Amino acid sequence: MIDKNELIGFIAAVCTTFAFLPQVIKVWKTKQTKDLSLRMYTIMFIGICLWFVYGLRINSLSIILANIVTGVLVFTILVFIFRGKNGK
Amino acid sequence: MIDKNELIGFIAAVCTTFAFLPQVIKVWKTKQTKDLSLRMYTIMFIGICLWFVYGLRINSLSIILANIVTGVLVFTILVFIFRGKNGK
Repeated sequence: MIDKNELIGFIAAVCTTFAFLPQVIKVWKTKQTKDLSLRMYTIMFIGICLWFVYGLRINSLSIILANIVTGVLVFTILVFIFRGKNGK
Repeated sequence: MIDKNELIGFIAAVCTTFAFLPQVIKVWKTKQTKDLSLRMYTIMFIGICLWFVYGLRINSLSIILANIVTGVLVFTILVFIFRGKNGK
């Protein structure tokens, strides 16, 4: 039997991890990023890197894996924002 | 003495919680949201609500408070995206 609390936590983690995927698809298709906050994605990426380090230090595979996925998605958005700024 | 791991985790949590603030400020000032993914913020908001419920059920004040802050920020962005869509 799966603990009900941990099931809620797991679905929550899946949502907040993969939420960035539709934004990645949107910027990939449109190449439009001017409404996106560079500061937001920079701070988010720093936070995700720190979560990854935290996960390594406390040996939590869930934290490590979740933050690799979110890190890749957020980094992809950052690349598109930078390309958009340089293309201006 | 603060545990070094928990300090890293705390700074990580502050980053990933307040990262949304510059995006809120940006949409508040510009009212431009067309590059933002409605799906991203919808899924993120559902995830944050579930984290909040998880925090209540396991009695974690940190999870409850962090997700109230992120929830308010993400909800504000959602309101601006909806306003933008209706204004078209």
